[in-house]
Amino acid sequence: MNLADLPTPCLVLDRSILARNLKTMASAVARLGVPLRPHMKTAKSIDVARLALEGQPGGITVSTLAEAEYFLGHGITDMLYAVGITPQKLEQVVRLNASGARIIVITDDPTMAGIIADHPTPPRTLIEIDSGEDRAGVHPDSDLLLDLGARLGPSLAGVMTHAGHSYTGRSVREMEGFAQAERDAITRAASRLRSAGHPVGIVSAGSSPTARHAENFAGVTELRAGVYMFGDLFQAEIETHGKDAIAVTVLASVIGRRPGRILVDAGGLALSKDRSTEAAPHDYGFGLALDLDGQPSLGSAIVRRAYQEHGVIELDPRHPVDLPIGAKLRIAPNHTCMTVAAHDRYFVVNGGREVAAIWHRVNGW
Amino acid sequence: MNLADLPTPCLVLDRSILARNLKTMASAVARLGVPLRPHMKTAKSIDVARLALEGQPGGITVSTLAEAEYFLGHGITDMLYAVGITPQKLEQVVRLNASGARIIVITDDPTMAGIIADHPTPPRTLIEIDSGEDRAGVHPDSDLLLDLGARLGPSLAGVMTHAGHSYTGRSVREMEGFAQAERDAITRAASRLRSAGHPVGIVSAGSSPTARHAENFAGVTELRAGVYMFGDLFQAEIETHGKDAIAVTVLASVIGRRPGRILVDAGGLALSKDRSTEAAPHDYGFGLALDLDGQPSLGSAIVRRAYQEHGVIELDPRHPVDLPIGAKLRIAPNHTCMTVAAHDRYFVVNGGREVAAIWHRVNGW
Repeated sequence: MNLADLPTPCLVLDRSILARNLKTMASAVARLGVPLRPHMKTAKSIDVARLALEGQPGGITVSTLAEAEYFLGHGITDMLYAVGITPQKLEQVVRLNASGARIIVITDDPTMAGIIADHPTPPRTLIEIDSGEDRAGVHPDSDLLLDLGARLGPSLAGVMTHAGHSYTGRSVREMEGFAQAERDAITRAASRLRSAGHPVGIVSAGSSPTARHAENFAGVTELRAGVYMFGDLFQAEIETHGKDAIAVTVLASVIGRRPGRILVDAGGLALSKDRSTEAAPHDYGFGLALDLDGQPSLGSAIVRRAYQEHGVIELDPRHPVDLPIGAKLRIAPNHTCMTVAAHDRYFVVNGGREVAAIWHRVNGW
Repeated sequence: MNLADLPTPCLVLDRSILARNLKTMASAVARLGVPLRPHMKTAKSIDVARLALEGQPGGITVSTLAEAEYFLGHGITDMLYAVGITPQKLEQVVRLNASGARIIVITDDPTMAGIIADHPTPPRTLIEIDSGEDRAGVHPDSDLLLDLGARLGPSLAGVMTHAGHSYTGRSVREMEGFAQAERDAITRAASRLRSAGHPVGIVSAGSSPTARHAENFAGVTELRAGVYMFGDLFQAEIETHGKDAIAVTVLASVIGRRPGRILVDAGGLALSKDRSTEAAPHDYGFGLALDLDGQPSLGSAIVRRAYQEHGVIELDPRHPVDLPIGAKLRIAPNHTCMTVAAHDRYFVVNGGREVAAIWHRVNGW
């Protein structure tokens, strides 16, 4: 099977780029002396998980309980469900744990902490700490932190934070600063809990930019990151990786031709409506057009408009192309986590056009 | 089964609102004397298709060949695939037509028209006309129109256009203007082709706003529309329907609480990253929060930030609520076509909280 023969739109995953990205992150965290708990929210694939876990302890992070169930079915038991738990989802986790999983949950809510502690078979629980993202979590210096520790009692297994605001950084130096703040917040929280007599085994932090660029994560027991596996235009813009490190692209066909532009069959559904690069140094619209080999021979041709099933690519006048109806090209995504979620499988290549494998994804909830 | 018991996030479809929306559109097109070929790109469900087809001739519009295969499997044969055809997809259509479908395709490209005409069993083909959207299609006064007609020969079945630029309209009066321009363009194209000796049986036009608000579609043989079935905040803003006519919402659970806001488990994946209301009179962020009954008791609480699995709802200080972790609410979408695509089923209610049915969707390509 060759890329040229695939129905479009679909996802192409270049395993050689994926392998390079995994190696880069593995080296970064090895230098820090902290193991990786890869976040599978982006890839949602057991085949990718197996590669990402090479040389790591074996635990993963998940963003949905559908992922947890899927990965348990493929033999992975140590999972951190990194979205605040609810009473209803607690019961789902308890059921999965009774089936052999060892899912860890997170909370920042005192009532929820009490519900967990009162459960006859509670999962291990981490207190979520806000290290500056201002999304979820308690402040490391708050009274609430110690209150949560006391309420959780023996269910307390540690603390976690996510420096998602590192996405506002625009340079390696800024990322180092975010990583430092992330480490300071999470180790401060761990230390306060320990001083209050609570054992804190897990001190979990991470985001792709901070895990990649930190100077020091002493006191942190594991790092979580996900988007680094595939990369995207936004992460390239904020220097998490190079522009040649985008492992996933959307294969599309030309369905219309006009002077200076082409229409393709990858629109808002196949690419997502994510516009994260709008806030980046370079705005790529809804994605950057590459040729069938994944090379930038179309220059700065970008998807300027995205309708449900139509994408309008504005061509780069310095790189004129004359593609007939049905010709195929590839589109690098703005935000890979959003783009891949519309697709149920990856067509895997090794740098060329030959499809070496098909890897499935677990979508939904 | 009750909404309060469903795992979140998931889609809630209120059949009573859907029925009202279908009736409103059926009345609008009946007044115009033009039958409807409902566009199933939004609902992608046979259960919805059956309701939308009541009182109509029985043909539908599809946006993917996955939809075509699915609807054929459910007994619908008359389908217009309303995205420009490619040589590869032509073969898929021919195969489906050999299995009993009667799929009509569209093109605006002379080379593609020749490929269709040269096929031993070509599908009926419409020439796509640009009535002002500037996305695809030929100008009704162009030489290319007659060239396409000549190339298609006996495969030519008619003309089609989509006034998607009606989405830039902001009032009923503007929509009437877009509808007039849409009608003028498509009937002009039909008339020129007929004068050149080509039979033009199908004159297909439509978008939800223009089908709803047109004064006159004389000469048009069918109208296509899709989003009117479910509605959304954007369509409400541009007066395609009332604010109480949004049939689909996302059910979500509270996963975090902070002063003035709540965190829910519906983020960019469950809601989509669509920001269409950014350009509307009222910007709803990533969606408007409603209570579990779908009522606006939270005032103007909107999803201000959307992460992959987290949505941050800014509460309306005039409508304070104190929702515990796990409490459920519903979120009206900006752009329903994008939001529903992340989900594989609808939990159907009849105005209340009792789930009367589960209807499945066909996603992907």
